Amino acid sequence: MSLHISARTQAMPASAIRKLVPLSDAAKARGIHVYHLNVGAPDIKSPDCAFEAVVSKCKGMHHLSYTNSAGLMELRQGMVDKYYKKIGIDIDVSELLVDVAGSEAFSVAMQIAAGPGEEIIVVEPFYTNYQTFAFLNDITLKVVPTDIHEGFKIPDISEFEKLVTPKTRAVLISNPCNPSGKLFTRDEMLAIGDFCRRHDLFLISDEVYREFCYTDEPHYSAMYIPGLEQNVILADSVSKRYNLCGARIGCIVSHNKDVMAAALKFAQSRLCPPVLGQYAAIGALDTPQSYFDEVKAEYIRRRDCAVRMLNEMPGVFAPTPYGAFYTVVELPVDDAEDFARWMLTDFTLDGATTMVTPAASFYKTPGAGRNHARIAYVLEVPELEKALHVLGEGLKEYCKR
Amino acid sequence: MSLHISARTQAMPASAIRKLVPLSDAAKARGIHVYHLNVGAPDIKSPDCAFEAVVSKCKGMHHLSYTNSAGLMELRQGMVDKYYKKIGIDIDVSELLVDVAGSEAFSVAMQIAAGPGEEIIVVEPFYTNYQTFAFLNDITLKVVPTDIHEGFKIPDISEFEKLVTPKTRAVLISNPCNPSGKLFTRDEMLAIGDFCRRHDLFLISDEVYREFCYTDEPHYSAMYIPGLEQNVILADSVSKRYNLCGARIGCIVSHNKDVMAAALKFAQSRLCPPVLGQYAAIGALDTPQSYFDEVKAEYIRRRDCAVRMLNEMPGVFAPTPYGAFYTVVELPVDDAEDFARWMLTDFTLDGATTMVTPAASFYKTPGAGRNHARIAYVLEVPELEKALHVLGEGLKEYCKR
Repeated sequence: MSLHISARTQAMPASAIRKLVPLSDAAKARGIHVYHLNVGAPDIKSPDCAFEAVVSKCKGMHHLSYTNSAGLMELRQGMVDKYYKKIGIDIDVSELLVDVAGSEAFSVAMQIAAGPGEEIIVVEPFYTNYQTFAFLNDITLKVVPTDIHEGFKIPDISEFEKLVTPKTRAVLISNPCNPSGKLFTRDEMLAIGDFCRRHDLFLISDEVYREFCYTDEPHYSAMYIPGLEQNVILADSVSKRYNLCGARIGCIVSHNKDVMAAALKFAQSRLCPPVLGQYAAIGALDTPQSYFDEVKAEYIRRRDCAVRMLNEMPGVFAPTPYGAFYTVVELPVDDAEDFARWMLTDFTLDGATTMVTPAASFYKTPGAGRNHARIAYVLEVPELEKALHVLGEGLKEYCKR
Repeated sequence: MSLHISARTQAMPASAIRKLVPLSDAAKARGIHVYHLNVGAPDIKSPDCAFEAVVSKCKGMHHLSYTNSAGLMELRQGMVDKYYKKIGIDIDVSELLVDVAGSEAFSVAMQIAAGPGEEIIVVEPFYTNYQTFAFLNDITLKVVPTDIHEGFKIPDISEFEKLVTPKTRAVLISNPCNPSGKLFTRDEMLAIGDFCRRHDLFLISDEVYREFCYTDEPHYSAMYIPGLEQNVILADSVSKRYNLCGARIGCIVSHNKDVMAAALKFAQSRLCPPVLGQYAAIGALDTPQSYFDEVKAEYIRRRDCAVRMLNEMPGVFAPTPYGAFYTVVELPVDDAEDFARWMLTDFTLDGATTMVTPAASFYKTPGAGRNHARIAYVLEVPELEKALHVLGEGLKEYCKR
């Protein structure tokens, strides 16, 4: 035998979103300005009350000990009373457990629903780390394809039915969707709910972008679906909601007692969620509605700018996203990854280039999404305009080669 | 099919350390004071500089974004220069990655070393969550037993040799050991190192209690073992070292480039470590040596008190631990779990009772450790004396029943 890392770890997919980072670092080292449309790291201000809470708790503090594995009661009760109640999700504090951000919440939810050799149905394109956690737990993702030209509309439920086997355990959705910005309609949610009920499947609903919806209708949470109380596992994020990505606080919510007992077992194995982040989250609960209104208006401006400029580029198709801060676009190239690399290695305009995420890793169907890229509209409009201008010029030159 | 949580999650062991908590909560609800000798949650003051750093970073801060998945460079470089260099561990910043506490560090290290169906050798008794993470990853733990009456001395290496199969991938140790307080000698470490080298095994060394050693000789880290650079994966904790358990910051350290590349893949799947905790850790790096000297002196007082009082109890045997803040004791009972439960449900002395952790869950050998309990000496001496007095009186009464 020789010393080598485990075969499973070797085969584990590297983050597609982050794998071009060395190329962008190299570009920066050459003095090039890189516009980042590749990561969902918004520049939006976090609410002041979050930082104030941390400062106030830390001043005169002498000891930072573990909290309960399920999180501080002050935070859990606060989330129940000040947030979920307000949006019509009526839960008891025992039905909510604080997790280390949305990432832990949906990873745990997937493991609770499905074991090795079992299957979870996802709508494609989907967040790449669903595949990472499925891989690590030997869970197979079965995909329902959607069409960019139909705005990633959820297909007829018969497409879900086709995928059901005796090993199917859950449906996993992201609503609004990372990467596509797709916002599920009430009817789509009810159809998926009915499907889960008929087949006794869990519905894992990743709603970390819930506060980023750009329609007049309110977001329709999986928790609203009548009669699906035992099936729904909600994965949520405080970090995303309040632009506190670094706080690493999320939660798992379910009316199903077995699910919550299982979530606690996972929670105990990592002892407790980050406590300073919990303080920030407690403070963030007092964020006024005006903050969300402003954030929403800002994202609508950015989205409109991005969609308009992208569709003006010859051969580019960009559907209008109604949620999150991403859009998936079709590019007039064979391989969006090759294009994204080329932008970092071979192209500059006035000393700048633009970084996007090739979208193939958001697809599992072989060949699907190869000419798609994910654009995160996380810059202010003037910067976003510059970034997209550079992208457009780069695309022209790439296509001429 | 019916809706139920996955078979693997159902079979996942619940935290043995935390499973008596409902009984202690019930006792408190009856007005009983519970002395907690059951969890490693010390009452020792965290260094002021940690909180000062958080306050100073948060004041006037407008945005809490993700950091690099490997952690803030300021923290990584600080740990390399201000901590590891000082204790003679010479590493480059690329050989250290910030993790979500020691828990993530050793969980990831185990997965890097071994895949499903493979084996890791551990010294028994061992930290229960090693078993949890082995279970979740379908890794088998093979155990080298030790004897409480020999102070948990590491047996001859022939006991390790017996366990080697073609599936063996690593040795995992906790030094100083949770739960036994065993401190590995230099000779024991060199023998284990030689064994790992001969069999091409990783040596995963969980050294989160390194700063809690009570001998004159310095702690002998696995990183010191000559010629074992490619084999050693160090799992470390900032949270423990500075009594900042709630910060949830640890790290994984290795000279092996493949290990670090794999650790980064895992790190990217959870995006980034908690950022406010990273700030606390940056501040904690300036903790003066006098802090550690005082903490060490305090733990020696507590340990001496605990070992003396425990050994004075009829039928109790408590070896002297040389590290961490735990000791495993032999009790004159058939089943320490039954006794620990009884203390919470049936016994009080002047309105108080004492909670300990039954130690069977730290053993894998069937029947081993059934009459052992883990005592965490995490209270100041006057409180510890009261807690142990209550424990001793309870034990007398329990034995008389």
